[in-house]
Amino acid sequence: QEKMKIAILPGDGIGPEIVEQAVNVLQALGEKFELETAPVGGAGYAAHGHPLPDGTLKLAKEADAVLFGAVGDYQYDSLERSLRPEQAILGLRKNLGLFANLRPAILYPELAGASTLKPEVVSGLDILIIRELTGDIYFGQPRGVRTAPDGAFKGEREGFDTMRYAESEIRRIAHVAFQAAQKRDKRLTSVDKANVLETFQFWKDIVTEVHKDYPDVALEHMYVDNAAMQLVRAPKKFDVIVTGNMFGDILSDAAAMLTGSIGMLPSASLDANNKGLYEPSHGSAPDIAGKGIANPLATILSAAMMLRFSLDKAEQAERIENAVKQVLAQGLRTADIYEAGTTKVGTKEMGAAVVKAL
Amino acid sequence: QEKMKIAILPGDGIGPEIVEQAVNVLQALGEKFELETAPVGGAGYAAHGHPLPDGTLKLAKEADAVLFGAVGDYQYDSLERSLRPEQAILGLRKNLGLFANLRPAILYPELAGASTLKPEVVSGLDILIIRELTGDIYFGQPRGVRTAPDGAFKGEREGFDTMRYAESEIRRIAHVAFQAAQKRDKRLTSVDKANVLETFQFWKDIVTEVHKDYPDVALEHMYVDNAAMQLVRAPKKFDVIVTGNMFGDILSDAAAMLTGSIGMLPSASLDANNKGLYEPSHGSAPDIAGKGIANPLATILSAAMMLRFSLDKAEQAERIENAVKQVLAQGLRTADIYEAGTTKVGTKEMGAAVVKAL
Ligand SMILES: CC(C)[C@H](C(=O)O)[C@@H](O)C(=O)O
Ligand SMILES: CC(C)[C@H](C(=O)O)[C@@H](O)C(=O)O
Repeated sequence: QEKMKIAILPGDGIGPEIVEQAVNVLQALGEKFELETAPVGGAGYAAHGHPLPDGTLKLAKEADAVLFGAVGDYQYDSLERSLRPEQAILGLRKNLGLFANLRPAILYPELAGASTLKPEVVSGLDILIIRELTGDIYFGQPRGVRTAPDGAFKGEREGFDTMRYAESEIRRIAHVAFQAAQKRDKRLTSVDKANVLETFQFWKDIVTEVHKDYPDVALEHMYVDNAAMQLVRAPKKFDVIVTGNMFGDILSDAAAMLTGSIGMLPSASLDANNKGLYEPSHGSAPDIAGKGIANPLATILSAAMMLRFSLDKAEQAERIENAVKQVLAQGLRTADIYEAGTTKVGTKEMGAAVVKAL
Repeated sequence: QEKMKIAILPGDGIGPEIVEQAVNVLQALGEKFELETAPVGGAGYAAHGHPLPDGTLKLAKEADAVLFGAVGDYQYDSLERSLRPEQAILGLRKNLGLFANLRPAILYPELAGASTLKPEVVSGLDILIIRELTGDIYFGQPRGVRTAPDGAFKGEREGFDTMRYAESEIRRIAHVAFQAAQKRDKRLTSVDKANVLETFQFWKDIVTEVHKDYPDVALEHMYVDNAAMQLVRAPKKFDVIVTGNMFGDILSDAAAMLTGSIGMLPSASLDANNKGLYEPSHGSAPDIAGKGIANPLATILSAAMMLRFSLDKAEQAERIENAVKQVLAQGLRTADIYEAGTTKVGTKEMGAAVVKAL
């Protein structure tokens, strides 16, 4: 059997520091991986004049999986949009066909105090948000700024975008979601805005059709505004949520913030063959970059997801997840999740503690 | 001076009960209003076969202001979309040109316990969300279900919608928002998704231009996913938020839920001449309709907003707002905001208490 190849894309801000720790953890597993690093985001622009340099995209395509840090930093804010760091993320998603974004929002019992929500509302929270990632208004053509061709503002300048979902796009993400629900509490909430949008009436109809293949899963439909409210009111009522790219962007971040510990949350973005890109749910936090205080656990847990979904090594994934639980139980905390009575550690110490706990 | 005419549209579910109390409060002010009632939503469909009957729309157009209850009930769920109750809301907004939706999210000190968030995070919350209400993907043409004309799914069935904002549409809502901020803490957050959407890059550019007219207001731009997170993390940091129709739908409901007392929150939807439609931020709650337990305060406070914005009677508005504060201080609570140690009252008792406190 060939060695599995992992593309390591550290990116900007705290990206390199946290990815370094995840790489240490991967290397401590005793498996033979081929790791190859390439610049992405601002670092890609700095090295090759583009946030997603050709060589980086090529590496990501060849690899069995991609471990991604984070992108974005102040000095790139004034670049024109097509050169800004976040274009790398959009480019990787589209070029690799990563249509299924899995974002668990889990609150570790030890960290319940970090949430802005009352402990009884969030402690033990364990929901999974599945966001479609290559369709919707993110990529829909046509789009641009033009002279309005019709309507009440005909003749004026206007900005416009197109929301689109094709039947097979909805079907494939629905299958991912129903299958994920089957492995959990067998409850799926499909979030739409069918009362207003044609795209999401269509979405709702197709999800309802796919449901026939999964009679053991309870399906509920919910409007996006109501979903945003229920996430605040009673987030533990959800099991798996599936939604489109735009609504998923908003809801998955809101859900992550409910836990108060976004520094703990991994994510996976998968293609049709379970190849994937794995990244922490948080951003590049340029304000604390280089200080050695960033929390590497979301990235380490992303590496665990990678082992499970793309590298077929569920046992190794569990080893990492248990090691993370252990360091939390030991009372080790980076600054973002620190509370009185626990031990504050830096990025490297936290990574080393996970390696030790393996 | 002519008598001012108010269209009363009670709607469905708890709508009639809560509007009745707001009407009692209006009548207790000692002003001469002409009140005329018409059916809307499911009630409109039941009476005239359409959620927004011609007579109801005519009345709303003639009136100086509209007091609206809520629409929606189980028996109308299976109607085809164009006949469902919520179409009445969309129809009124579009036909009356109600482009500016003002939704305060205020947490009364007495009700801090009702929130799912920790008291220190939300007590004293006082933010104002201004949502554009007649543009965006809500009304943008073209839309529908079709055979995909291009793209990776060409030839397949797809649902699609068009997001659009014209320059003058953005300008006018920006002016409303900056002026509202001037009357408050002089801080405005414009929420967009300029990193992905052309419409919202355009939005951001125009809002930045309009800012030149309001140098005393501090303007900040924030991506919608981050705004959803910051609302959960530190909602009190906001003063005024302005955003588009779709993002506003989601964020204003999330913000309302932060308070834990959505039964307390009014809203105003204004046209270019301060004519407006006023309604509670909550829905028609068919599960508790007719039980006499619904909270009428959001509707009563909506009537206060109506006096302030459309009827030029700010003093009367304040009288009502103070009366509401007084009944809360007296410890009166409807079931939705009840806590041990307070006095539980029904819809009528709460309305009567406000009248008495006037
Ligand atoms: C950076 C941005 C384009 C991206 C998105 O909107 O998808 C980010 O918010 C995310 O959720 O990964
Ligand atoms: C009922 C629905 C069409 C409406 C909307 O999406 O605008 C509602 O959610 C609201 O916010 O008033």
